[in-house]
Amino acid sequence: MQICCLDLEGVLLPEIWIAVAEHFHNDDLRLTTRDISDYDQLMQHRLKVLRKNRIRLADIQGVIAGMEPLAGAGDFLDDLYRDFQVVLLSDTYYEFAMPLIRKLGNPTLLCNWLTVSRSGYIANYILRQKDGKRKAVKAFKQIGFRVVAAGDSYNDLSMLRTADRGVLFNPPEAIVKRYPAFPVSRDYATLSRLLRQQ
Amino acid sequence: MQICCLDLEGVLLPEIWIAVAEHFHNDDLRLTTRDISDYDQLMQHRLKVLRKNRIRLADIQGVIAGMEPLAGAGDFLDDLYRDFQVVLLSDTYYEFAMPLIRKLGNPTLLCNWLTVSRSGYIANYILRQKDGKRKAVKAFKQIGFRVVAAGDSYNDLSMLRTADRGVLFNPPEAIVKRYPAFPVSRDYATLSRLLRQQ
Repeated sequence: MQICCLDLEGVLLPEIWIAVAEHFHNDDLRLTTRDISDYDQLMQHRLKVLRKNRIRLADIQGVIAGMEPLAGAGDFLDDLYRDFQVVLLSDTYYEFAMPLIRKLGNPTLLCNWLTVSRSGYIANYILRQKDGKRKAVKAFKQIGFRVVAAGDSYNDLSMLRTADRGVLFNPPEAIVKRYPAFPVSRDYATLSRLLRQQ
Repeated sequence: MQICCLDLEGVLLPEIWIAVAEHFHNDDLRLTTRDISDYDQLMQHRLKVLRKNRIRLADIQGVIAGMEPLAGAGDFLDDLYRDFQVVLLSDTYYEFAMPLIRKLGNPTLLCNWLTVSRSGYIANYILRQKDGKRKAVKAFKQIGFRVVAAGDSYNDLSMLRTADRGVLFNPPEAIVKRYPAFPVSRDYATLSRLLRQQ
């Protein structure tokens, strides 16, 4: 039995911020870690845009309530459960992700928190720890597990490197070209097979 | 969001070894960590009894296939998911527990492994690490989470002490008397309430 650490958005869920950007027809919110690799820079940009456009946490949660996991994500997880203990490692926030986690059958999610102002705006974000995905993989290795991991973006690379095996899923071409050592998958069947290879 | 670490047998599942003992009408297999607190001593005793009585791993798995989680365990987990990321910490083996974990909806389980002889007997057990429950709680705290925990037996005490809050569930009277500092629950509603207290 091994632990399989999966990134959430882009692997099991659509990108939440892109759905929010599309809902509010706001291109300033479209940027993700695929575009800006410095997470704090990206988040401060997002919070500024939200305030400027008077978009509150509840408005975002309303958009998320209408979202669904990626097609096939549930079956993919069911398949993984045969050989892995699955833990989701994400830079998202519990205040965003939990309704979608319930739709996935409540797998374990380790992510971050938001703080909210009295008027309902996202005041700030609380990173559980810096480079939290990598440190979670390291912790699972230290308590005696072999760990495999999959992700799609810049913020997954240290996790993929720290795992005993790291696989890219639907990554942007820039990452494929710059980090050719990682095996690449573009559908769940291939990802499932690559994660199981020793 | 906090992490809730739960012992498995006695909390969500019946004691597997007791079910095995009853199935094979063998009182030598009835002992658990409630009776012998030294785990290696207990396991070597069990493996000797199994060989002597020609009980193979497949025979035990046949008994487990007919078992069910404790009444209300699924609803209890669903209730916890509203406020916690749930991780099961057990001294059992994946080779035993997985069919029952599936019946609980595939929560994350961190436990141990068995080795099996060519003739199908359990040859030995592989402890992932010594005092694994406590070390898993410590790892979750180190990656930035508040951790609550619940268990019923001697092998849970170091986990309960290491967690930010530890609650006993249906413990034997000897533990209640000897460790009066832990709050005690005897039904899921009380356990759920006590885990949520700060």
